[in-house]
Amino acid sequence: MRLPSDSIPPSVFSARRARLADVLAGRKLDAYFFSGISDLYYLTGFHSEGFYGLVGAKKTWLFSSALLAGQVRENAPGCALIVGKRLTLALEALRAQHGLRRVGFDGEQLNFRLGDALQKKGLTAAPNPLEELRVIKDDAELERLRRAGQITAEAVEHVKKRVRVGMTEKQMAVAIENYFYRRGATGVGFDLIAAVGPNTALPHHIPGESRLAKNSPVLFDVGCRVGAYRSDLTRSFYYGKITPSYKRVYGIVDAAQKAGIGTIRPGATGGQVDAAARNVIARAGYGRTFIHSTGHGVGVDIHEPPWVRPKSPDLLKPNMILTVEPGIYLAGRFGVRIEDTLRVTADGRETLTCI
Amino acid sequence: MRLPSDSIPPSVFSARRARLADVLAGRKLDAYFFSGISDLYYLTGFHSEGFYGLVGAKKTWLFSSALLAGQVRENAPGCALIVGKRLTLALEALRAQHGLRRVGFDGEQLNFRLGDALQKKGLTAAPNPLEELRVIKDDAELERLRRAGQITAEAVEHVKKRVRVGMTEKQMAVAIENYFYRRGATGVGFDLIAAVGPNTALPHHIPGESRLAKNSPVLFDVGCRVGAYRSDLTRSFYYGKITPSYKRVYGIVDAAQKAGIGTIRPGATGGQVDAAARNVIARAGYGRTFIHSTGHGVGVDIHEPPWVRPKSPDLLKPNMILTVEPGIYLAGRFGVRIEDTLRVTADGRETLTCI
Repeated sequence: MRLPSDSIPPSVFSARRARLADVLAGRKLDAYFFSGISDLYYLTGFHSEGFYGLVGAKKTWLFSSALLAGQVRENAPGCALIVGKRLTLALEALRAQHGLRRVGFDGEQLNFRLGDALQKKGLTAAPNPLEELRVIKDDAELERLRRAGQITAEAVEHVKKRVRVGMTEKQMAVAIENYFYRRGATGVGFDLIAAVGPNTALPHHIPGESRLAKNSPVLFDVGCRVGAYRSDLTRSFYYGKITPSYKRVYGIVDAAQKAGIGTIRPGATGGQVDAAARNVIARAGYGRTFIHSTGHGVGVDIHEPPWVRPKSPDLLKPNMILTVEPGIYLAGRFGVRIEDTLRVTADGRETLTCI
Repeated sequence: MRLPSDSIPPSVFSARRARLADVLAGRKLDAYFFSGISDLYYLTGFHSEGFYGLVGAKKTWLFSSALLAGQVRENAPGCALIVGKRLTLALEALRAQHGLRRVGFDGEQLNFRLGDALQKKGLTAAPNPLEELRVIKDDAELERLRRAGQITAEAVEHVKKRVRVGMTEKQMAVAIENYFYRRGATGVGFDLIAAVGPNTALPHHIPGESRLAKNSPVLFDVGCRVGAYRSDLTRSFYYGKITPSYKRVYGIVDAAQKAGIGTIRPGATGGQVDAAARNVIARAGYGRTFIHSTGHGVGVDIHEPPWVRPKSPDLLKPNMILTVEPGIYLAGRFGVRIEDTLRVTADGRETLTCI
């Protein structure tokens, strides 16, 4: 049964397969083999592990076990379904029958064993042709991305007001997740981060039993999912009497984020956004403490193109989605990261993670 | 910071690396390259995406980005840490320096691009040597697996009593997840399934907005995680006035599960457990509706060896963990699946998913 939040009409997915066929023709490929859950969702409307797809100029074949076949049939209309066959043999038969000579696969997504087997059958690792399509979001996608951004921003405001001395990081993360569900989100967008005290200095901290103390830094890096679409938001704040050093570092990260966001417009590169944010932190003398990329694209995947990192050549275009999330991490003391998810507009940017 | 629920002492992990070194010697490998999150947790105690490991006879090297290096250092004591180097180059240098000629990798876990690059450098896809170690659980693992089983069984009892007409599947799944957290679980063991009405006939249904009707079948397939260890439990029941056909099908699945469980003892194979359960369903005339394996191992992964499927040669040994979960699925009407997670004992089995 289709989820209401997933109810993008089948015509959207068949139109995507038709556009993909054009890209394949331009790359001189007869077909492309997909194994990634996000690519397969984008092409079919069915969001599940456990099936594969082959997209040719005029037809798409899906390969599934008997276990999942009923759900694939119902949720991925307009595709041919091949059930319970050995994948390499089924592919070989289709290629012979339909004259699919040049068939590519994504070497980053497929495991070595299967990729090696396909290569021996004459398929080739080739750049993923969906990348250029998925990076520009259509109206149905933007609707879900906006909703995900809004629910996430609300959840953080809601829980921020309710944190108290003695609460554990885990309790904070659970409170945010529950807020997501109450507002109709489909799920979490990724493993939520809530950190208190020196844990805020670990960019990928896992929420645990550490309890909020009276005067303490707090960091939430959270996001929800609406249908298949995600949001990503980080807020850092000081609970209790803020220290001068936290205040100063917060100001630098805030200025860095604003500088990064200010460069977002069609024609700018991911590298330019990264440099704008990074330079603010470097000039303040904290360059070595900003140990990650400035941001990333967001969509069906929580990390996807465009890449916002040093020297990234990815050119921003209208309706791309990206995060800007600079941070300063002082090991054993505290960390500050500020992140929003934004849309590239015709002449600038729109923040999605706001109420 | 180590999570309390994860606080297995570092000596356990170094002992595992030493045992692995013995396995490697027996397979004439100088070292093995690990990329899977579960293998790396099992070897190091750090449960996170984003780092790799090379285990040799006397030493283990971990490869990490700067972003994660602080956490790897703190959570994976006793390993050498290589930060921010290009993986293929770092591996080449180590192999030259330490005379590591025969180095294997897991072709199922590594992606094609990286596996292909490593193969070109002289590494070889080889069966994963951790499989035989991970499949037998030690005391610290059993403690967590028992706890996970108990919390899961309690959660289902708790929520079963509270389902009401009009509740959505999503609300039921969230209620179970919240119970997990209240009882101190680390998280969910996998995407929880709650299904009502005809959705129960879809083995991998995603909980949605379908609401419980007055007389309706319900199915929960849920599990939590304690530390890195998971549990897996399915209960099917009829809400309201049970129909004769549901009652009959339930009785068959129940008998099939008992038959499967009854065969579990050291020396039996996964294939024998599968056959025992499957034969009960086949003899009752529902063979074609039981469209999946009878079970699987459970540990750091929710699906791992031993495999409990037709003809599986996996030999059961004490302290292996496995599920038995036969099902009958009548499309458009209802499905029944009954599942428990069990431990192989010295002369039989112990159910872990009970209160």
